[in-house]
Amino acid sequence: MLKPFLFQSALAGLLVLTTATAWANDLTPQTREQLKAIKAHALNDDLSYQIIESLTTEVGPRMVGTPGEKASVKWAMQKMKSLGFDKVWKEESEATLWQRGELKASITQPYKQKIKALALGNSVGTNGKAVTAEVIEFENLDALKAASAGDIKGKIAFVSYKMARHRDGHGYGQAVGARVVGASEAARKGAVAFVMRSVGTDTNRFAHTGVQIYQDGVDKIPAIAISNPDADLLASMLTRNKPVTFSLTLSDTGTQNQTTTIANVIGEVTGSKYPDQVVTLGAHLDSWDVGTGAVDDGIGVGITLAAGHYLSELETRPERTLRVILFAAEEIGLHGAKDYVAKHQDEMDKHVIGAEWDFGNGKIYELEPGVGQQSLADIKAFAKMLVPMGVTLANSNDATGQSDMSELGKAGQPAVNFNPDGSDYFDFHHTENDTLDKVDREALKVNTAIYSMFALFATDSTTDFRQ
Amino acid sequence: MLKPFLFQSALAGLLVLTTATAWANDLTPQTREQLKAIKAHALNDDLSYQIIESLTTEVGPRMVGTPGEKASVKWAMQKMKSLGFDKVWKEESEATLWQRGELKASITQPYKQKIKALALGNSVGTNGKAVTAEVIEFENLDALKAASAGDIKGKIAFVSYKMARHRDGHGYGQAVGARVVGASEAARKGAVAFVMRSVGTDTNRFAHTGVQIYQDGVDKIPAIAISNPDADLLASMLTRNKPVTFSLTLSDTGTQNQTTTIANVIGEVTGSKYPDQVVTLGAHLDSWDVGTGAVDDGIGVGITLAAGHYLSELETRPERTLRVILFAAEEIGLHGAKDYVAKHQDEMDKHVIGAEWDFGNGKIYELEPGVGQQSLADIKAFAKMLVPMGVTLANSNDATGQSDMSELGKAGQPAVNFNPDGSDYFDFHHTENDTLDKVDREALKVNTAIYSMFALFATDSTTDFRQ
Repeated sequence: MLKPFLFQSALAGLLVLTTATAWANDLTPQTREQLKAIKAHALNDDLSYQIIESLTTEVGPRMVGTPGEKASVKWAMQKMKSLGFDKVWKEESEATLWQRGELKASITQPYKQKIKALALGNSVGTNGKAVTAEVIEFENLDALKAASAGDIKGKIAFVSYKMARHRDGHGYGQAVGARVVGASEAARKGAVAFVMRSVGTDTNRFAHTGVQIYQDGVDKIPAIAISNPDADLLASMLTRNKPVTFSLTLSDTGTQNQTTTIANVIGEVTGSKYPDQVVTLGAHLDSWDVGTGAVDDGIGVGITLAAGHYLSELETRPERTLRVILFAAEEIGLHGAKDYVAKHQDEMDKHVIGAEWDFGNGKIYELEPGVGQQSLADIKAFAKMLVPMGVTLANSNDATGQSDMSELGKAGQPAVNFNPDGSDYFDFHHTENDTLDKVDREALKVNTAIYSMFALFATDSTTDFRQ
Repeated sequence: MLKPFLFQSALAGLLVLTTATAWANDLTPQTREQLKAIKAHALNDDLSYQIIESLTTEVGPRMVGTPGEKASVKWAMQKMKSLGFDKVWKEESEATLWQRGELKASITQPYKQKIKALALGNSVGTNGKAVTAEVIEFENLDALKAASAGDIKGKIAFVSYKMARHRDGHGYGQAVGARVVGASEAARKGAVAFVMRSVGTDTNRFAHTGVQIYQDGVDKIPAIAISNPDADLLASMLTRNKPVTFSLTLSDTGTQNQTTTIANVIGEVTGSKYPDQVVTLGAHLDSWDVGTGAVDDGIGVGITLAAGHYLSELETRPERTLRVILFAAEEIGLHGAKDYVAKHQDEMDKHVIGAEWDFGNGKIYELEPGVGQQSLADIKAFAKMLVPMGVTLANSNDATGQSDMSELGKAGQPAVNFNPDGSDYFDFHHTENDTLDKVDREALKVNTAIYSMFALFATDSTTDFRQ
């Protein structure tokens, strides 16, 4: 349990980043010992890996609306129970269903070559026939937006922008716009299909899928992503000053526009003194259909369940409740997170603080808080414990939570983001190649230790992180 | 042109490896200048890359019996002519045809999961239905050989041996036996299908294809390779002490047991004084059907054609003839090379020396000769020129030529092997992922320079490398 800390000015806040000794009042020796103990325990264990191995082996892909998704809900409830959570339940809601059809893609002129591609989420099919047309290339989404309809009409629009690799993954934000709205932008100017270079940093021959969203009032045209090597090939052909034609056939699965039942799976380690005060750890249980969802977001499932288990094992329960939320349908638009907020509106003010894991397999290098100015001192004191693990405190206090947790953040829940090295996250993201072997077991141990420490710190605190 | 060298004893041969000054009589200053000039030219050019780009973009996959293979022959003849070769021709023969059918593979019990797999070359299909059976795992080919028929009968044999990564690629030799004979070994004991972990060093979700050969008197059963991550998954399921069943459906293409016309494509830069004395550079023109064959063996095509072009550009032609041979049907059993030897038996004794490139995208680190004891001194003198490029002389003299060139070696042609760093070669080998982006352009320049220097050295020499 933590003592209240003195208020720190913004200036002091800056100063503490430079020297450890200038930091806020420290944690109590007792708290430090407890955190060190749970850290040592997690670092010497591989429970989180075993959970990911179980999920990817016994369930595998778990796309919304598939048997894998149903199996994952059952798996998660059983796993939480076996791990010692006090309460385990699911909360169901409805989401729009989209299922992947069979895709065949090729360049047909001037040189025939098969292309490795995946439909983007929500893409319509091609009505049982091939769509074949000349390709027109755009270097990015802005170039597509700026083009005249006369150049595009009747053609296949190809956005060839290549995502850049960065530790914090910000290249994704620069690339993903084309995926989300490219098809509608192209359709508005009369394109018959939309083809894009995958949003990914790898050079493997895997396409990266992901959601695209049709805008109202625009024709729905087929939308696909091609692998980076295939995008290179298409771009090379386009340099030869001959018309390049592309052909794609995408079957309709007959499931479009249906809805399906989804379920958040929730487990609690009940607080000993303030059971209605809830600290949340989040991850998403669904995955894309093409890999086994080990990194995205099996790792999040493994870390959060392991942290819950370690808290359940303590001789003395923390005072507040830890709630682990495995969100449904994150990949197709944070549906589970939105449903959670809708269902828990009445108790959102009791959501003390939360953290999600949904960003890959790298080691955490930064703690980024999003709490009240007064309670920031507590976060700083906690962050000191992470310095030996290579974690620094971000020079900002704006976090609202990663991924699903951002919906809880919008609803007023304070948050911390633990930022891992995401340099290679987008090598695997949304591909067939997201499999168990991509999990860095050593980084996973450290990250699991950090989340376990955070869970203990926040549940055994009385601090109001909104203050 | 080189002067004859003094005979060196075996002991002296060992000593010269330790100090450059103890090496054989040196090349003439004139020869050294010529070699330096062609080296500088090659290092400042990217012709070999442009050739690979052209082949992979304008032809792509070129599996025996496919339109791509026919296109590649036409492409190669045109390319040689445009690059200034004096004579260009093709030599046709027949090879057995095998075409890949559609494969679907999955684990069906205890947990359903789709599996990424490729049929091995020559595999029969499954006659329009699925072959589904319990899986029995063997750690390697020896374990399969040692197993009793009672354990295997009616089951699917799975060899889970994982190839090791080494600079010289020797892990391949340890792994490939299961690919070549595993299906027959399994069939002999009553297995209904053969499944193996891909012969590859990567952890990507690509299966590695390659030839397997049915033995006489044994049932032909379907034979497939699964990707390394999928092999991990299958192995994980097998640890759970529940029966694991696997299902595969492989269509027959109706082309098995047919023959098809193949063609070696040959180009010469004619010698000015001894045109009937032939120095050979080799690579293979065919590729597997799944990638674009950039590394295997587009790089060989690029390097050998560029070397030929550089010789054709010299003001004074070398005295001997350089013959670049782009072999057919290497991937399915060195058919082109065997045909070449059969057709050129009468002039094999005029084949002075040869070198092939068929081992990836790494930088050459070693020159491994296979010449007469007397002429070894010439090779050593030449090798001195490569020391600044990071190339050492192997402490052996047993090379018979890589890949296709080994057939010419068996027929008496002296050889040198230029050994590149093959550490990552088996990441891409025989996969969909063998694409242009895998070519290391800087290593390619250095390697092209080395082959060009070798071609000039050998064609402008009068040495008998058999002596």
